[in-house]
Amino acid sequence: MDTPRESFHMTPDEFRTHGRAVVDWVADYLENIAQHPVASRVAPGETRAMLPENAPEHGEPFEAMLADLDRVILPGITHWQSPGWFGYFPCNGSGPAILGDLVSTGLGVQGMLWATSPAATELETHVLDWLVDLLALPETFRGNGVIQDSASSATLCALLAARERAGAPYGTLTGYTSTQAHSSVEKGWKIAGLDPANLRQVPVDEAYALRPGALADLLAADAKAGLTPAFVVATAGTTSSNAMDPIGATAAAAHAHGAWLHVDAAMSGTAAVCPEYRWIHDGLAEADSYCFNPHKWMWTSFDCDAFYVRDRAALTTALSVVPEYLRNAATESGAVIDYRDWQIPLGRRFRALKLWFVLRHYGAEGLRHHVREHVALAQELAAWVDKDERLVLSTPPPLNLVCFRHAEGDGATQRLLDDLNATGEVYLTHTRLDGDLTIRVSVGATQTRREHVERLRDLVDRHA
Amino acid sequence: MDTPRESFHMTPDEFRTHGRAVVDWVADYLENIAQHPVASRVAPGETRAMLPENAPEHGEPFEAMLADLDRVILPGITHWQSPGWFGYFPCNGSGPAILGDLVSTGLGVQGMLWATSPAATELETHVLDWLVDLLALPETFRGNGVIQDSASSATLCALLAARERAGAPYGTLTGYTSTQAHSSVEKGWKIAGLDPANLRQVPVDEAYALRPGALADLLAADAKAGLTPAFVVATAGTTSSNAMDPIGATAAAAHAHGAWLHVDAAMSGTAAVCPEYRWIHDGLAEADSYCFNPHKWMWTSFDCDAFYVRDRAALTTALSVVPEYLRNAATESGAVIDYRDWQIPLGRRFRALKLWFVLRHYGAEGLRHHVREHVALAQELAAWVDKDERLVLSTPPPLNLVCFRHAEGDGATQRLLDDLNATGEVYLTHTRLDGDLTIRVSVGATQTRREHVERLRDLVDRHA
Repeated sequence: MDTPRESFHMTPDEFRTHGRAVVDWVADYLENIAQHPVASRVAPGETRAMLPENAPEHGEPFEAMLADLDRVILPGITHWQSPGWFGYFPCNGSGPAILGDLVSTGLGVQGMLWATSPAATELETHVLDWLVDLLALPETFRGNGVIQDSASSATLCALLAARERAGAPYGTLTGYTSTQAHSSVEKGWKIAGLDPANLRQVPVDEAYALRPGALADLLAADAKAGLTPAFVVATAGTTSSNAMDPIGATAAAAHAHGAWLHVDAAMSGTAAVCPEYRWIHDGLAEADSYCFNPHKWMWTSFDCDAFYVRDRAALTTALSVVPEYLRNAATESGAVIDYRDWQIPLGRRFRALKLWFVLRHYGAEGLRHHVREHVALAQELAAWVDKDERLVLSTPPPLNLVCFRHAEGDGATQRLLDDLNATGEVYLTHTRLDGDLTIRVSVGATQTRREHVERLRDLVDRHA
Repeated sequence: MDTPRESFHMTPDEFRTHGRAVVDWVADYLENIAQHPVASRVAPGETRAMLPENAPEHGEPFEAMLADLDRVILPGITHWQSPGWFGYFPCNGSGPAILGDLVSTGLGVQGMLWATSPAATELETHVLDWLVDLLALPETFRGNGVIQDSASSATLCALLAARERAGAPYGTLTGYTSTQAHSSVEKGWKIAGLDPANLRQVPVDEAYALRPGALADLLAADAKAGLTPAFVVATAGTTSSNAMDPIGATAAAAHAHGAWLHVDAAMSGTAAVCPEYRWIHDGLAEADSYCFNPHKWMWTSFDCDAFYVRDRAALTTALSVVPEYLRNAATESGAVIDYRDWQIPLGRRFRALKLWFVLRHYGAEGLRHHVREHVALAQELAAWVDKDERLVLSTPPPLNLVCFRHAEGDGATQRLLDDLNATGEVYLTHTRLDGDLTIRVSVGATQTRREHVERLRDLVDRHA
């Protein structure tokens, strides 16, 4: 008969051995990623069909899990880290981010309160202050940053703060964002229990940017009707076309009616590491809150959204609930930040570590280098598209998102998109601009360099 | 003059080298964790004072980050992974979870849609079905599971589904949970824009469990007053005392008025891997939704909450917003799950990997072993407390949370708590039960074994 086991935990030495194997597996994966078709080709149900129906009764050797990564998981992966990734926006990892996150998981702290790991809170505030300098963000944001999982959650938190600050019945509150804003604004509005009929879509100009005059008209009409303008979202780099809403004029219109201005720069904010792109943030000093995603273009593995508020009390008033079991001396001293009051959930990972590792590994110089490279490559591609008679450039790209369609219309555009994705060498996604089916080329994945954009250009040339 | 660098990215070989160093650092940390005082002793601002004011202009060697982990970060860490961790509830990591999460970060996929990595979605549905079997959860939950970051978010999602299903003006909706429920219910209610005055606190019995008769009375009174009972939360294992609300009777009361019943088993749900503890879920087949946290007692690193709904359409109706740029053939076929419609944010990590690794490493046998060990140790500790005249056991512990106070009152209890925490060998937190300051001993950290609970007992003996 077997002796009952004392422990089923992995020993430190086993962890060392298996950890090395996983590090090597990840290194191999990232090194050879271009060998996989960028988008997975499995059919619905195909991954599940390879998995055993039940969890095992007895533990399995670690090697079995590693083998199944190759056999079961990889065929079902769409490779966001591939150099041929031009879809949606990027969701970038990098060596220092992966390893910083490994430290975070290893430490296994839960930073809901300052007291539950002071370093987790203080490093977070500190690196977000570093970003205030790196991106030349307004001084009003210094000391008032927090990491959210995503821009969706940042927008929701901003909305909740705005909803409370408005001080009027929820049913009378109105919100405003351009027709091109991210779907998370509508989703947040719905979550916050506000009237869907009171969320206005502001018309845009020929560059798909919010028209502040139109916003002012909508605000005035609502105020006149006895409604309470509460929340305006400006986007610095829309998802469909990377349009840049004029932040200063939007802020002026919003503030004339007492509404909160949130600026969503999820994708493009990172560009402000380069002085020549800081114009995208013109007027930001007037904003009430702001976010951008280091997990998009700042090589910091998902999830990492940097969210700032001008008035932290507005945020914590909206989100603070303090039961007895969370009371503690540090919190009651008022000398510390408890980030649980700055977010939707209670618990939180130590996400600042991966961002700290990234900022220290690349240095400001390294961040600027790769952002500039992607913008230059996108601009070259746009110039080439613009000269090709078979293609129509939708709008001049402000930074690194190139939008175009086939001159022969939606059918031809869809065929071109399908043909490009069928190569498996690249992956692109679509949108609609002024009703036209439009191919988006987002040049921003960590591994995307000149050769990959040139290859994409050749593929477009061949399939157009 | 320097030649401009081509790339600042970490090379695969550098990643291998630094990755091994980080694996070793984590192994050393976890192996020697008991050498640190469990709760950090830094003062507010002390961590920040050790950090340079600005991000570096030029990248730093990786060794500098590793050195700063020891110098800057560790003193500011409160060690949730310590065997002396008896505070709050645990937030557990383990070798297989840490390495599964490393694979996830390395793959760097964003699983918002089935199409953006089919394996991420399908493995998640599949391992959550494994848990239906392992915990003997109701068949209604099969195929209807999703990983949330935390139970707070699960409760909020359940509430949003309930709010929409109620089909009445938001201002007329009422909610119900016991006086002992987690603060996330109140926080979620606030986020969802519902009237704080309409969230009822249901009285509890002598074991701090919700009184279904009192709930029925409140529901009837509200219905009679023209309000719409929409949402009831029962807790299987409250935070203050691990009380088990009677799920079946609570469900009957809720459903008699058409309200949604959500069951929050964040801490204790894992116990159901052992048949002898499955009574905590009696009546669960009647629940509309349910969650428990593998990141608490199932050795799966934060964040990982397993959330199930009976009627997935109620959830996705509440949370779905589909812009053009997210449309795709797989979604429109209806043959797949898009988990973005099951959660608050849009983006999502591939969190199923760490849970998969845990379930396969431990096997059902391993999970049961460690849960039983913690319950047995807690029961022994409770029996010892109960016999000691200096101490008062607050309530017989159902599982692994022991609550007690000093017989001489709050002052003595506070001194005992402070003295225990001052040893640095253990960390405990407090609550109030019936107005009495109460020490909580949560026996559940990954490394906590017999010797650590016995040491805690000796420390209590010495300081009482």
